[in-house]
Amino acid sequence: MQDEPVLDLAHLGHLELLTPKPDESLRFFIDVLGMTESGRQGDSVYLRGWDDYERHSLKLTASKKPGMGHMAFRARSQPALERRVAALKGSGYDIGWTDGDLGHGPAFQCRDPDGHLIELYYETEWYVAPPELKPALKNQAQRFPARGVNVRRLDHLNCLASDIRANRIFFEDYLGCRLTEQIVQNDGAEAGMWMTLTNKSYDFAFTRDHTGAKGRFHHLTYALDSREDVLRAADIFLEAGVPIESGPHKHAVQQTFFLYVYEPGGNRVEVCNAGARLILAPDWKPIVWTEEERKKGQAWGMKTVESFHTYGTPPVEDSE
Amino acid sequence: MQDEPVLDLAHLGHLELLTPKPDESLRFFIDVLGMTESGRQGDSVYLRGWDDYERHSLKLTASKKPGMGHMAFRARSQPALERRVAALKGSGYDIGWTDGDLGHGPAFQCRDPDGHLIELYYETEWYVAPPELKPALKNQAQRFPARGVNVRRLDHLNCLASDIRANRIFFEDYLGCRLTEQIVQNDGAEAGMWMTLTNKSYDFAFTRDHTGAKGRFHHLTYALDSREDVLRAADIFLEAGVPIESGPHKHAVQQTFFLYVYEPGGNRVEVCNAGARLILAPDWKPIVWTEEERKKGQAWGMKTVESFHTYGTPPVEDSE
Amino acid sequence: MQDEPVLDLAHLGHLELLTPKPDESLRFFIDVLGMTESGRQGDSVYLRGWDDYERHSLKLTASKKPGMGHMAFRARSQPALERRVAALKGSGYDIGWTDGDLGHGPAFQCRDPDGHLIELYYETEWYVAPPELKPALKNQAQRFPARGVNVRRLDHLNCLASDIRANRIFFEDYLGCRLTEQIVQNDGAEAGMWMTLTNKSYDFAFTRDHTGAKGRFHHLTYALDSREDVLRAADIFLEAGVPIESGPHKHAVQQTFFLYVYEPGGNRVEVCNAGARLILAPDWKPIVWTEEERKKGQAWGMKTVESFHTYGTPPVEDSE
Amino acid sequence: MQDEPVLDLAHLGHLELLTPKPDESLRFFIDVLGMTESGRQGDSVYLRGWDDYERHSLKLTASKKPGMGHMAFRARSQPALERRVAALKGSGYDIGWTDGDLGHGPAFQCRDPDGHLIELYYETEWYVAPPELKPALKNQAQRFPARGVNVRRLDHLNCLASDIRANRIFFEDYLGCRLTEQIVQNDGAEAGMWMTLTNKSYDFAFTRDHTGAKGRFHHLTYALDSREDVLRAADIFLEAGVPIESGPHKHAVQQTFFLYVYEPGGNRVEVCNAGARLILAPDWKPIVWTEEERKKGQAWGMKTVESFHTYGTPPVEDSE
Repeated sequence: MQDEPVLDLAHLGHLELLTPKPDESLRFFIDVLGMTESGRQGDSVYLRGWDDYERHSLKLTASKKPGMGHMAFRARSQPALERRVAALKGSGYDIGWTDGDLGHGPAFQCRDPDGHLIELYYETEWYVAPPELKPALKNQAQRFPARGVNVRRLDHLNCLASDIRANRIFFEDYLGCRLTEQIVQNDGAEAGMWMTLTNKSYDFAFTRDHTGAKGRFHHLTYALDSREDVLRAADIFLEAGVPIESGPHKHAVQQTFFLYVYEPGGNRVEVCNAGARLILAPDWKPIVWTEEERKKGQAWGMKTVESFHTYGTPPVEDSE
Repeated sequence: MQDEPVLDLAHLGHLELLTPKPDESLRFFIDVLGMTESGRQGDSVYLRGWDDYERHSLKLTASKKPGMGHMAFRARSQPALERRVAALKGSGYDIGWTDGDLGHGPAFQCRDPDGHLIELYYETEWYVAPPELKPALKNQAQRFPARGVNVRRLDHLNCLASDIRANRIFFEDYLGCRLTEQIVQNDGAEAGMWMTLTNKSYDFAFTRDHTGAKGRFHHLTYALDSREDVLRAADIFLEAGVPIESGPHKHAVQQTFFLYVYEPGGNRVEVCNAGARLILAPDWKPIVWTEEERKKGQAWGMKTVESFHTYGTPPVEDSE
Repeated sequence: MQDEPVLDLAHLGHLELLTPKPDESLRFFIDVLGMTESGRQGDSVYLRGWDDYERHSLKLTASKKPGMGHMAFRARSQPALERRVAALKGSGYDIGWTDGDLGHGPAFQCRDPDGHLIELYYETEWYVAPPELKPALKNQAQRFPARGVNVRRLDHLNCLASDIRANRIFFEDYLGCRLTEQIVQNDGAEAGMWMTLTNKSYDFAFTRDHTGAKGRFHHLTYALDSREDVLRAADIFLEAGVPIESGPHKHAVQQTFFLYVYEPGGNRVEVCNAGARLILAPDWKPIVWTEEERKKGQAWGMKTVESFHTYGTPPVEDSE
Repeated sequence: MQDEPVLDLAHLGHLELLTPKPDESLRFFIDVLGMTESGRQGDSVYLRGWDDYERHSLKLTASKKPGMGHMAFRARSQPALERRVAALKGSGYDIGWTDGDLGHGPAFQCRDPDGHLIELYYETEWYVAPPELKPALKNQAQRFPARGVNVRRLDHLNCLASDIRANRIFFEDYLGCRLTEQIVQNDGAEAGMWMTLTNKSYDFAFTRDHTGAKGRFHHLTYALDSREDVLRAADIFLEAGVPIESGPHKHAVQQTFFLYVYEPGGNRVEVCNAGARLILAPDWKPIVWTEEERKKGQAWGMKTVESFHTYGTPPVEDSE
């Protein structure tokens, strides 16, 4: 009989971003991206897009080097969380429980085979807007800021990994993530994967770290409503002196309309739009891209910039 | 211990629309909406948007009167389908199995308390584009048509019902649908409900039939990528002589950017855009709108046109 | 032999808006519309959109009642200005020269038959952005503000008049304005006119004042780049508590995509988008709309709200 | 005393495009770009965008090699045309009168210093839509086609020239064209120029032919309403197998949002959007771009593709 899918995790909840320039990074996320500060604790500031329902989707932490502190997934229920913990315990990937953090309850920590730190949690604090940020429509978490790029909600993140296949199997088997697209080289090696927990076509992706380093971060992405919003973001980044790495253009993989920039701390940040594209099929068959197909570049022909394959945080020279 | 949600149904799969003017309705869906014919059988033509992954999302059937033949939901797996059937059997709402239809396998039929016919199925035929409709990107079901309104995929449908509360409980208890927003009158009566099986904020809605009639249909909706696409659709409907009932404007409920027209057979058709709005919270708390709030009209102040509350198919004079 | 057109005036330069709530009006134009203050003098604050090339396009003046102080047109050259002055002198519409104002040189004042004050000038001060507002691209006047509605440049204004025909003849004969569209009633009376000095389809319009009052103001309009920008403006007005009178919708006349709101001082303000529509024909034949055609409402069927025909500034009860 | 500008020419009217693959080129312009055929004569088919007010804006002529047959400007009046002819006669650039062509009356031919053929005319045939192409709104020339890219109207053209400065002086002195932007090399040589007859920031441009060839053509451009329309055009070109050379991206020069493709005959075709940007100043000061500034690439950092500097029609190997 057909195995039924594990549906225990609901969605990517937030990530912790490390920055060696905390003040400038904070100004970038608030003034340029249009995010809202929703808390401070220790060396961290908690930030959110206007449509994130939880208290925060980004934890910005001062650190010697840029990179990702951890990624966090929210479980669908408390029993669902406990099932995932039970599956992880003794696997060698498990670390153990934390007491939680500002904005969410107890979290179970583990590491993927490449070493990225992952937290799973269920209890969360729903964002309650202060009076000056109350929205006009009650089905919205927070007032539209009308400031900078006005990012809506956390969309996905992307990490680098030395062994994509090992990471794929981990996320499938232990966390119930579903593969929607992947890149497989002519020699059979997996070079990239896009996985989802939702009807979005991906909640996170991993691409092969050409440097062979482990545990590095590639980018985080906030969603905008339209491609025009992404173009306007490019205008705003240009005016604000934010370095644009690549885009706006349309990816062939996942058809995301993308724009990559660097925040002051050195981490890559994307704003994107996926239009009305959703993966509704419960039995979606992963799209497999070959080397030849990827050599054609992006959807409309733009070649992928070299830095996209090599630059991650922390930079490799630092990580060795 | 907390009950865990039923996740057995994956999404709205298709609906059957009845039309007394089958040729003109077909021309509307193909030439004006930009849909593609993907099969014919008996009095029915099967149609699809370019991003629908199944063979069809609309079954257009010649009939004496307009209205909805049935709505169909795809289950997440065969065992999931069987669980729903087991729940329904003996409930009084169950009808029984059919052999399936062009495009999908065996379906279990039931009726909601208001009498609308519902089919549940799992086995489905994935759309395979003929050579002239092969898309340039392999992660897309079909070539973008570049014709008329270019509707993307079935988004949702809306029916009228005499007893909203009874229908809500049916869809929650037997099908595992989740309520995201509702209208509750001052006297406590439920007047409208929006329910989802996905991360979309709704897959279908029911609003109270002011005429007291039962089993009527309000509209079906195809998704477009942006609000600008909806505005362009209005330009195209105007040129094509398609009667516009209301919009483009933004609903307060669900914040959908909407445009309602009538297809030649008399059924209401909507094109909409929801932007990047998704319901990611697994424990979403339904938004409850009061009578006073609804009297404010739509998001930007437009009053709801009277026909929106009274017109459904089949028209009431016919249905008695 | 064919008469050659008078081409002496180049474009609408600015207007002076009167407000009984100067502080709140100023906050509206800066915080909500996204304009920039570029000077202060006496009871006036001078404001500009980021793409206005002159120092200001709006002079906001504290006053007991709302309304328009004056409208100002920039001549194509100094000799062109002098030709218009020569034509006006002794016409009964002429007033005489002023020394100019902050931002522009000597101006010749006159009144149209309905009594609206008009200024003609040539010498002007080009806007020079301070360092913090320097744009990234040197062909742009000022940095894109990324604040509020981000209005681009003054597009047009609209006044009410008791005798449209008389005003049309004045603007054609004395100022060389070209009629592009008009409304003519069944009894032959002119009820509205749209005139241009540029390739825009209008720089200003007059519609009949149903109250019979004279010299009143209907609205001023700033241009945005796309219809989506106008929709986003509606979202922002909603959040900011700005009263929306009508729209967003598409006018049948001129096909402008419009949105009307009230600024705190009581004046009507529009943001609009005309797309790539331009009047390139030097011998454009005015479009004449009949009463029956206008009764169809706006382009996609919305009925014109009643206040649009009756509300102007100053309000009639005050002006008597 | 200040010289007054020559305002005798109204706008770019049309151009003649030469194609060695007339059938395939015709299908491209009709099926992919969404243009309408409005006449045939000899080896030529006449085509138009839905918002072009004259009968045609493109004359597509079968030819051994691709390239431009001629460009044509419409005068503001018959006397204005005669003034330009008088200025040209005996200049060495003048050729003489033709009897006109399908769609317009007598035209005076001349050549610019680089050898491109130019026609000036005043009498023109306004487009009258046949019943099936009548628009819903009477202020529009033709029904919106809802087919392919739906190009709106001819926007501008671009030619290559060996001596930009000589061409600039010709267009300024003999035709009254106004320079809005230019590229000047460190050695003082002019490398590109953008000139206008309207409030558009350019009606045509010339850039230096790096091959040293004379009289070549670079591209023609049709206008769309929004940047999103240009992105959608890219999707449609991709699906139709039309080779995309570059874009969509935003030019630093003129800030045009551009997309370049090749039509089957080998000529470069652009679709663009300029938003609400207009040159309203009658005394606009040309923007001068230096070599260093141009090396920064396009507005958001994309490097200009090499072929953009070298490819023109006819190809150089053929033209020698």
